[in-house]
Amino acid sequence: MKYTIALLAGDGIGPEVINEAVKVSDAIAKKFNHEITWTPALTGACAIDAVGVPYPDETHEICMAADAVLFGAIGHPKYDNDPSAPVRPEQGLLLMRKKLGLFANVRPTFTFPSLIDNSPLKRERIEGTDLVFLRELTGGIYFGEKGRRDGGETAFDNCVYTRAEVQRLAKKGFELAMTRSKKLCCVDKANVLETSRLWRETVQAMEKDYPEVTVSYEFVDAVAMRLVQWPNSYDVLITENLFGDILTDEASVISGSMGLMPSASVGEHTSLYEPIHGSYPQATGLNIANPLATVLSAAMMFEDAFGLKEEAAAIRAVVNKSLEQGIVTEDLAAKGATAYKTSDVGDWLVANL
Amino acid sequence: MKYTIALLAGDGIGPEVINEAVKVSDAIAKKFNHEITWTPALTGACAIDAVGVPYPDETHEICMAADAVLFGAIGHPKYDNDPSAPVRPEQGLLLMRKKLGLFANVRPTFTFPSLIDNSPLKRERIEGTDLVFLRELTGGIYFGEKGRRDGGETAFDNCVYTRAEVQRLAKKGFELAMTRSKKLCCVDKANVLETSRLWRETVQAMEKDYPEVTVSYEFVDAVAMRLVQWPNSYDVLITENLFGDILTDEASVISGSMGLMPSASVGEHTSLYEPIHGSYPQATGLNIANPLATVLSAAMMFEDAFGLKEEAAAIRAVVNKSLEQGIVTEDLAAKGATAYKTSDVGDWLVANL
Ligand SMILES: CC(C)[C@H](C(=O)O)[C@@H](O)C(=O)O
Ligand SMILES: CC(C)[C@H](C(=O)O)[C@@H](O)C(=O)O
Repeated sequence: MKYTIALLAGDGIGPEVINEAVKVSDAIAKKFNHEITWTPALTGACAIDAVGVPYPDETHEICMAADAVLFGAIGHPKYDNDPSAPVRPEQGLLLMRKKLGLFANVRPTFTFPSLIDNSPLKRERIEGTDLVFLRELTGGIYFGEKGRRDGGETAFDNCVYTRAEVQRLAKKGFELAMTRSKKLCCVDKANVLETSRLWRETVQAMEKDYPEVTVSYEFVDAVAMRLVQWPNSYDVLITENLFGDILTDEASVISGSMGLMPSASVGEHTSLYEPIHGSYPQATGLNIANPLATVLSAAMMFEDAFGLKEEAAAIRAVVNKSLEQGIVTEDLAAKGATAYKTSDVGDWLVANL
Repeated sequence: MKYTIALLAGDGIGPEVINEAVKVSDAIAKKFNHEITWTPALTGACAIDAVGVPYPDETHEICMAADAVLFGAIGHPKYDNDPSAPVRPEQGLLLMRKKLGLFANVRPTFTFPSLIDNSPLKRERIEGTDLVFLRELTGGIYFGEKGRRDGGETAFDNCVYTRAEVQRLAKKGFELAMTRSKKLCCVDKANVLETSRLWRETVQAMEKDYPEVTVSYEFVDAVAMRLVQWPNSYDVLITENLFGDILTDEASVISGSMGLMPSASVGEHTSLYEPIHGSYPQATGLNIANPLATVLSAAMMFEDAFGLKEEAAAIRAVVNKSLEQGIVTEDLAAKGATAYKTSDVGDWLVANL
């Protein structure tokens, strides 16, 4: 098969980790007789520098025309610590999500046996954790009306959800639960928020369509606790945009493998795959960044965007092998062991596919 | 001195744990020659049952007339799992916070050496943790306009903050930081929310009044991560209502001593002290609930509401002693060791004061 993939490397270590994911993807394509055309495009700080906006129209067109988007990371210190600057990289992210209709952010948290001791949690708490958050990504307080009144003395942000927005996200949640352990947790704050009550009643009404799925409803504060206490008690969780922002990040650090976690954002027009880690600007150009989260994001792309399960499994298998054999960058290298360079890890993966 | 304390025992185990806190407080009062008058009042499910509303006017008058409020816990299963029921115990909580002007919720998280191994985190991660959240409690999305449009198909919740609201909370944060390590963290989502930008600019403008305090600004998602990774890197944190709800609960489970954490809500008219744990309905009447969080809340009351440091220190000392000597309820009892009853723990504390 032929695939066109928009390649948004972004800032900082983005280009370096993307490079390895491209190498691995090309090798897989060759092995399984596919043809990939990569179409690079600018986003983030590098786009601001080049053309003045973080998500240029040209980039949008490239993404719309592609079968999928592979994304590195964005953000640069020169745009940091000034959330009120007129143009910022993360505005590009929000615009991109909205314009591409990426309404569901898929964020798995799982563990690698060889990395479990990196977790801040005790082994017995984290072992066996394998959960997925579906975070609503194009609605809620992120995109509601916001502004100032009273000469700037009062600020407001409006959180808005429609039943249709909840339904399309929840549908993905139910479907995902059906492919896993058939357990779905709806995370809300229905004891306080009207939007949460809409979420809850909408999900409740959908239960009858998925009689095999057991649905629980938990308050966001309770989930923030239980994620630390009994993460392996969760399977699929669905939630709104802001709760998802907080909880998926919390979930990402409990595994001890944060630097390895992939993610997907899926929606109406295309789907986008990216590592959950940031642009790690201090490491830019040093060839030390861990490329595995991006490589695993490419695996998600093969499986979910192209339906190529075998290809995805092959990538995951070689990643596991590299971890087991200690072919890892400095963030994962055992004390005293040699750390491999970003590109060395990529080369090893390609050679061992 | 003479003190009048409104006693809101609430539901579930509330009355039992409150009872022990009263015993300990009375003993301290006797020892230090104070006179306490307790004025009991209804709140929560028991108030709904008795008079149809969760925070009756009479209760409000009793709280307003008192020097402080000691609160147990509220909530009962018969009002659970139905966030859209017309009358619910937590509405009483919100009404009480608003009517009493309790704009700052003070939530410490600290560790007890003898309980550190109860933490889900590894010892080296949690040791030395001693942080305090100041959560804004009477504003934000909890109290903004909320409702439905489009025949119920669209729901909205408005988050609103004024500069004055931020200032009075931040002022408490700076003042608290001055009495501790002079480190203050302002938690916001200023890369997305206008209310967060107001928070950040307001706190930034106050920095000059507290030149000794080092202020950091962190995004709520980053704090949700770092709380699990390096909790002991924090000292005083200030944040808005909803972020505070989520993060304080997250912080409470990392210590391994959740069942012991006290809290205060302070404000314009009075201050209220309560354990952070819930009403634990299954344990009602069994005399097994751990009373220490409520006893430690009473200690906070002596220190902060009445300025009685020595009295507070005496309570904390005897609590520590009880922990060291294993005079604890079943939640903390070592394997094979006898668990003490709620009232036995209280009696022991009184006898050992
Ligand atoms: C950068 C920021 C706007 C973004 C978000 O809050 O969605 C980020 O935290 C994320 O989770 O992708
Ligand atoms: C019961 C609920 C309304 C309340 C809140 O969200 O404030 C509780 O979670 C708390 O933190 O005291």
